[in-house]
Amino acid sequence: MAEKITPRATNYSEWYLDIVKEAGLAQNAAGVKGCMVIRPTGYALWEKMQRALDRLFKDTGHVNAYFPLFIPMSYLAKEEEMAEGFAKECAVVTHYRLKAEPGKPLHVDPTAELEEPLIVRPTSETIIWRTYKDWVQSYRDLPLLINQWCNVVRWEMRTRLFLRTAEFLWQEGHTAHASAAEAEEETHKMVRVYQKFAEEWMAMPVLVGPKTDGQKFPGAVYTLCIEAMMQDGKALQAGTSHFLGQNFAKAFDVTFKDKENKEEFAWATSWGVSTRLIGGLIMTHSDDNGLVVPPRLAPTHVVIVPLGKNDAERGPSIAAAEKLAAELRALPRDEFFGYEPISVKIDTMFDKQPGFRYAEHEVRGVPVRVEIGPKDIEKAACAVARRDVPGKEGKQFGVALATAADHIAKLLRDIQQALYDRARAYRDGCIATANTLDEFKALFPVEKEDGGTTAGLKFVYAHWDGTRETEDRVQAEYKATIRCLPFDGPVEAGTCIFTGKPSARRVIFARAY
Amino acid sequence: MAEKITPRATNYSEWYLDIVKEAGLAQNAAGVKGCMVIRPTGYALWEKMQRALDRLFKDTGHVNAYFPLFIPMSYLAKEEEMAEGFAKECAVVTHYRLKAEPGKPLHVDPTAELEEPLIVRPTSETIIWRTYKDWVQSYRDLPLLINQWCNVVRWEMRTRLFLRTAEFLWQEGHTAHASAAEAEEETHKMVRVYQKFAEEWMAMPVLVGPKTDGQKFPGAVYTLCIEAMMQDGKALQAGTSHFLGQNFAKAFDVTFKDKENKEEFAWATSWGVSTRLIGGLIMTHSDDNGLVVPPRLAPTHVVIVPLGKNDAERGPSIAAAEKLAAELRALPRDEFFGYEPISVKIDTMFDKQPGFRYAEHEVRGVPVRVEIGPKDIEKAACAVARRDVPGKEGKQFGVALATAADHIAKLLRDIQQALYDRARAYRDGCIATANTLDEFKALFPVEKEDGGTTAGLKFVYAHWDGTRETEDRVQAEYKATIRCLPFDGPVEAGTCIFTGKPSARRVIFARAY
Ligand SMILES: [Zn+2]
Ligand SMILES: [Zn+2]
Repeated sequence: MAEKITPRATNYSEWYLDIVKEAGLAQNAAGVKGCMVIRPTGYALWEKMQRALDRLFKDTGHVNAYFPLFIPMSYLAKEEEMAEGFAKECAVVTHYRLKAEPGKPLHVDPTAELEEPLIVRPTSETIIWRTYKDWVQSYRDLPLLINQWCNVVRWEMRTRLFLRTAEFLWQEGHTAHASAAEAEEETHKMVRVYQKFAEEWMAMPVLVGPKTDGQKFPGAVYTLCIEAMMQDGKALQAGTSHFLGQNFAKAFDVTFKDKENKEEFAWATSWGVSTRLIGGLIMTHSDDNGLVVPPRLAPTHVVIVPLGKNDAERGPSIAAAEKLAAELRALPRDEFFGYEPISVKIDTMFDKQPGFRYAEHEVRGVPVRVEIGPKDIEKAACAVARRDVPGKEGKQFGVALATAADHIAKLLRDIQQALYDRARAYRDGCIATANTLDEFKALFPVEKEDGGTTAGLKFVYAHWDGTRETEDRVQAEYKATIRCLPFDGPVEAGTCIFTGKPSARRVIFARAY
Repeated sequence: MAEKITPRATNYSEWYLDIVKEAGLAQNAAGVKGCMVIRPTGYALWEKMQRALDRLFKDTGHVNAYFPLFIPMSYLAKEEEMAEGFAKECAVVTHYRLKAEPGKPLHVDPTAELEEPLIVRPTSETIIWRTYKDWVQSYRDLPLLINQWCNVVRWEMRTRLFLRTAEFLWQEGHTAHASAAEAEEETHKMVRVYQKFAEEWMAMPVLVGPKTDGQKFPGAVYTLCIEAMMQDGKALQAGTSHFLGQNFAKAFDVTFKDKENKEEFAWATSWGVSTRLIGGLIMTHSDDNGLVVPPRLAPTHVVIVPLGKNDAERGPSIAAAEKLAAELRALPRDEFFGYEPISVKIDTMFDKQPGFRYAEHEVRGVPVRVEIGPKDIEKAACAVARRDVPGKEGKQFGVALATAADHIAKLLRDIQQALYDRARAYRDGCIATANTLDEFKALFPVEKEDGGTTAGLKFVYAHWDGTRETEDRVQAEYKATIRCLPFDGPVEAGTCIFTGKPSARRVIFARAY
């Protein structure tokens, strides 16, 4: 398996696609340009993510609901920025019937044209705020704290599995509040929930802060985001939380009577993360041997590989494997693993060489591999290999079978922490500061990007004059965008390195997915 | 609240819609004909159903995956029966872009027409079997045991919330096998999984058996189903499991090399249940006071209502409520509640009368209500009311607070069983046999159905000659369809009551949703 994966240093994009393929995560759909099939291992990752995020949403008072897939074109038109922002990516339903006539090919029935075209939701602010109009009369009806898990469609021409596809899965939170302050608090709260999920489940450190006006969501007053660094130094926008002001309340006439019986427009937020996170997970932790998954999100936590040349040798290995598996599964459920049992598989591919079997589990990113052979049985022991440290260095021999379950349960927690620490150290090591345009130019070389490696890219702090014009020019010349104004970044004033005008603070530039 | 619900005896359809509305389950979407908004309480029910079903699917070896929303029209055309079966209900995407021009209304961009129209999936056999073509080469790649949770669209003109909507949520299992026998075993296994879910979680007894050829799924060799009886005596098809033979393998050229290296077409099954189950749940258990939910699917298991005229009285009631809530939540997690804690809410609507508060929880179907007032506090006790037995009869006074948590945990299990027993007794009491056409006519009176009550309808065993022609005629004349040939029903031969021809066995006729 491993030999099928292009090394990162050779070609980073190929490496990424090889992992998506060889770990069985996803593939391009046949016949439907830009759509993907999420394969079972990829979907299992998404289920784990959903479970953890859903718990975080519910713990912060949110409930789930479901709104229609279709949005009347006129709804989209009601919020001008949103209409402009999404018009070019809309899949449009115009007919509601086909005709199957004997002897003729199946075709669209021209007599079944919709009076008004329906858009397949690219995001649901419009249909949801039209619904909120029915739900909100008084301040007592507020806040509405609602989330939706669903599919959305944004017609993309250049797609890449998980990172950019025409259809993707996501969650979209849509809240309505009686005051701007409360809605802004929600906007900040939810970006911090995303940060928590990214760091504590995905083991992926993120910068948190507002987008520039040029990069904000169409229809938002401002957008907060989490930005992660991939191993090639590019940024991945991993989640966004928008303060929408009263824009959608005004577009859909959602008003409420406040405590003084005065009519007011409601205040809105929306926030979302998507299957794009799976791309981020891959590019944060994986290596040239394949996928690496943080234990809290791993569909399979432990694979046990019993070894032996013949049935006589295999019998005791299998028995020990089954005993250990049962012990692991029976460990008390706790919050760390979402109150699910530790997931254990026993590999019985005895017709393959051990090396092949190990590589198979490595490519799929199982966090811990246990090997039990005849010599181990003699010593009532096993070997335990951690996926995040490949090779001998990460393999511990002679782990007593009697205490192996506890040992492994602790190791899984250690791996989770180690992955975060490693990603954090890598990211922090790739944050630079450019004090002059020349320094900036050196950090964003303009050679052709695709195919070759882009390793060595960095997150670059630089002074910027705060204008859209400068931002657009930098993007055009260096393919670098302002990722955000990190809440935790330095805030001293200075001079814009592009125009020499005053700058309120340094911002983060990066190339991005 | 309760006064807003039309009694079943007055108008059964109104009663159903009133419950959907007053319990906050769903509503028709504004602007999108035939689509529904699933409101938070309704969606919470669906989440509970999903969780339980997903566990049953995984325990039978299935994994989840995700396939595209869009299906090329040519894929649908490849399986003739399916094309004919779904052509009239297809939402068709023909364009991939809108145009937002200043001064002009938002409109479909005529230059962005798709070369081939895309269908919004009404079911996914075609796109999935096109994908399986890539996954299957050898018998070693089989079986594929895959399930998908998603939305589907079937353009319906006459819709009813949950029971029949243009878009609905469902799961669709799609399996591929190396032999007909194995695929048929899967077909039967999954209809039994549905039966288990219906009976043990929904507390809804079902008949299980094959559909007639006239009622089977387009593209299936045969269809097995579970059929439930609603309180008006109508049938609800609650789940189906299809043996698809080699139809889809042939349409998409999915072949494999068997152990003798011979090329064979794969064998298929598919099976699904949908948000329609929520309609079935409502119509199986609810009463004129509102929704009744079996505890295993209840989003909230217990509501505690502290009482008191003033703060001095309320303080101890609230303290006792919080203590009891904490005790209930801390009970050991077990399989009965899906390893989730018992869900408890404390009602603090002190500005409302107790009767209003009780009715509010009744209409929403919370299985157990606990009342704690000053007099209870004196006795260190509480009153416990079970939703399935409204009024005094279902209310137990003087339950000691010290042991209330255990008492309630047991009561929840009792309610689950009692609901099943009651539904089963009701259903069994409404199964009749018609030995003559006159008897049949009397059981399916042809008076106008809508508006008025249709109570008194029954499931009717009758001999039928086995022909599509007779089946269609009975449907046209009596609006009764053959629901299934129950596996557990009587199988002696006889004479068709419609034609006098020989009949192999009695089948079940009913009016149906
Ligand atoms: Zn950012
Ligand atoms: Zn049936």
